[in-house]
Amino acid sequence: MTEQAPRIDPDFRPLPIPQPESFRYEERDRVGVITLDRPDRYNALTFAVYRELTDLFSVIDRRSLDPDGARALVIRGEGKAFCSGGDVEDIITRLFDRDMEALLRFTRMTGELIHAIRRCKTPVVASVKKVAAGAGAVISLACDLRVMGRKSFFAFLFPQVGLSGADMGASWLLPRVVGLGHASELLLLGDRVYAERCAEIGLANRVIDDEDPAKVDEAAFELALAIARKPHFATRMTKTMLQQEQDMGFGDAIEAEAQAQAICMQHPDFKEANDAWLAKRDPNWK
Amino acid sequence: MTEQAPRIDPDFRPLPIPQPESFRYEERDRVGVITLDRPDRYNALTFAVYRELTDLFSVIDRRSLDPDGARALVIRGEGKAFCSGGDVEDIITRLFDRDMEALLRFTRMTGELIHAIRRCKTPVVASVKKVAAGAGAVISLACDLRVMGRKSFFAFLFPQVGLSGADMGASWLLPRVVGLGHASELLLLGDRVYAERCAEIGLANRVIDDEDPAKVDEAAFELALAIARKPHFATRMTKTMLQQEQDMGFGDAIEAEAQAQAICMQHPDFKEANDAWLAKRDPNWK
Amino acid sequence: MTEQAPRIDPDFRPLPIPQPESFRYEERDRVGVITLDRPDRYNALTFAVYRELTDLFSVIDRRSLDPDGARALVIRGEGKAFCSGGDVEDIITRLFDRDMEALLRFTRMTGELIHAIRRCKTPVVASVKKVAAGAGAVISLACDLRVMGRKSFFAFLFPQVGLSGADMGASWLLPRVVGLGHASELLLLGDRVYAERCAEIGLANRVIDDEDPAKVDEAAFELALAIARKPHFATRMTKTMLQQEQDMGFGDAIEAEAQAQAICMQHPDFKEANDAWLAKRDPNWK
Repeated sequence: MTEQAPRIDPDFRPLPIPQPESFRYEERDRVGVITLDRPDRYNALTFAVYRELTDLFSVIDRRSLDPDGARALVIRGEGKAFCSGGDVEDIITRLFDRDMEALLRFTRMTGELIHAIRRCKTPVVASVKKVAAGAGAVISLACDLRVMGRKSFFAFLFPQVGLSGADMGASWLLPRVVGLGHASELLLLGDRVYAERCAEIGLANRVIDDEDPAKVDEAAFELALAIARKPHFATRMTKTMLQQEQDMGFGDAIEAEAQAQAICMQHPDFKEANDAWLAKRDPNWK
Repeated sequence: MTEQAPRIDPDFRPLPIPQPESFRYEERDRVGVITLDRPDRYNALTFAVYRELTDLFSVIDRRSLDPDGARALVIRGEGKAFCSGGDVEDIITRLFDRDMEALLRFTRMTGELIHAIRRCKTPVVASVKKVAAGAGAVISLACDLRVMGRKSFFAFLFPQVGLSGADMGASWLLPRVVGLGHASELLLLGDRVYAERCAEIGLANRVIDDEDPAKVDEAAFELALAIARKPHFATRMTKTMLQQEQDMGFGDAIEAEAQAQAICMQHPDFKEANDAWLAKRDPNWK
Repeated sequence: MTEQAPRIDPDFRPLPIPQPESFRYEERDRVGVITLDRPDRYNALTFAVYRELTDLFSVIDRRSLDPDGARALVIRGEGKAFCSGGDVEDIITRLFDRDMEALLRFTRMTGELIHAIRRCKTPVVASVKKVAAGAGAVISLACDLRVMGRKSFFAFLFPQVGLSGADMGASWLLPRVVGLGHASELLLLGDRVYAERCAEIGLANRVIDDEDPAKVDEAAFELALAIARKPHFATRMTKTMLQQEQDMGFGDAIEAEAQAQAICMQHPDFKEANDAWLAKRDPNWK
């Protein structure tokens, strides 16, 4: 629950910008942009993407100590779509012959990705263009915020492929985002849910006209940029506590927040906010 | 959390279609239809209905192993209304003279019905015509999906009869379906909440024009039919996990889903989905 | 979980109406009205208000045993606004020099206020005029119901002052009221959220035209009055269980409600409801 500000961490080692092989990663204006890069396959996921993406979120989290580390993330797909889920050829057809031990290695690996997204204290914005299906829907669901193109949709299509909605944490996350009634509908039926409906039920934070899909990416980037410009130490604490307190009783949460906020009050950003306000200038966060 | 596919269950015994005495039960197209059958009393509940209905959900659940067992359920009322709650003459007036032990026998029995609905792995669709009041509101709330007629309403009318909103699990279920703010309003006031409003807050999944009440029943049946045609083994896992993960921490849920989905991946429905897709035909689920 | 009806409590001692020094408190028609009374500072909170307000909720709760005790509460601000949060001069600037021990004394005190609101079995309605910001937003969030003026807004503005959204329980409460997606947006960005949007996401229970701010206060009072006229013993049980069951597993909740409702069935209000209904008169609750 506690974090160290960079300047007083004796173990601080700068980390290079990650250079994944199975997708792209760039940083601009303190925003890290993850680009799933298989546009001819609607950015379907491969085993390699799962593995590298899980590692990336962990590295990004540690790299936030770096003076130029990313302070917010966008996850997007190259081209028109976000992500159609596990690749049929690379993943799905290879699972049929596996025994239980090998199946569990796969389902635990996919769950580990979702865990890494939620544990990464750097907030993540999903840019949902055209389609977020199967594992692509769950990845987007695990992000902190979701920007959707007006004609794009979520599809928790597990029933269509003979599987359950208990995939990578979807049955835990979705009721906590949209409520148990909507979640039951989405996971039992597996139908497409378009952006307007997603906004109504709390699954989309923003809906953007998407004649030009690039506009959805831009809106997601702008939202991540707005977060990157907030006081980062406090932002990381907010994401951490939002996640942790899902599993806490109310009394414990009250005490946990008293500790978390007291920590933030000792960080220089708290006084800087006041100094900037008195001097009528923008604050310079650490 | 684990289930056995029918073909390998050494303990499999076919169960007859239940024939309750205090309400009706029929099966059609793999959908079981429960009909509360006291239309002159708005289908008010009696002690006998509570007892038999609780048992029914348990039998239906076991009967799902049967090759022709119901794969989805509808609960509806005969005539114009869904259910007005506990019958004033059969139940309410008989409670006034009871001592605490006898009262607890009653409240535990009613809670057991709700527990049975949530524990029944076969999804349940409520057809809410005209009124779902008191215990009728909670029964509908415990269903997985709710179809409402446009002029029908929920009424958690406990305050009107001197009772609390802590009835049969309503104070646990309602905040998880509509959020704590709406739930507090509904349970503290006990007012009628009409279908449009129910849809806005997440309590209704579908709203149907109900000039003809039979249309609401039809829509509920169609929704159940859509679920019955999904891969049933996976569907049952979805409902099971949605309920169980309400009480799980996130890390435990990630592991639980890894196990649950690995189990589904060993079920023949998973490969059948792929085979059907390759052959451009509809899948034949087990 | 259990309560004693007044008449059988051997320890009953009447308590005087509290007379706080740092804000106002009046009772009318069994509704207690708390008025934050620093209109020139948008009713910003001082250390004294935090302390006295926390104590007030505890006293109100005990005073409900008194034959004329308040049965519902309104919390409002004097003048045009509800509450702008911690006073910059009285509180914020005095925190900069504190060591961790002294900071924790403050954050624990503020959390204790929120705990006292949730633990107070008497329901509380917030009258949100113009602005509910920072700690003012969290206080309103902890109330059972929120009435908002159409042009008023919530602002969880912690990022603007260098702090986290883990403040006084906000990161626990907000996801349970509006869902995790909306809560992440509100706490990570800290932007203003106006009344119409608050109603859409479940944060506002009522939106009132507020050309005249007094109309918002009136609507909040009317809502509290409606609650005060319900059977109070059962109402207190409803609030208690709604809060407690947030931290309970489903099975435990079913048993807890069976006990809670059985207790209410032994209270004379349950029979009174039936007697009044038979005699076609309004019930006289204890």
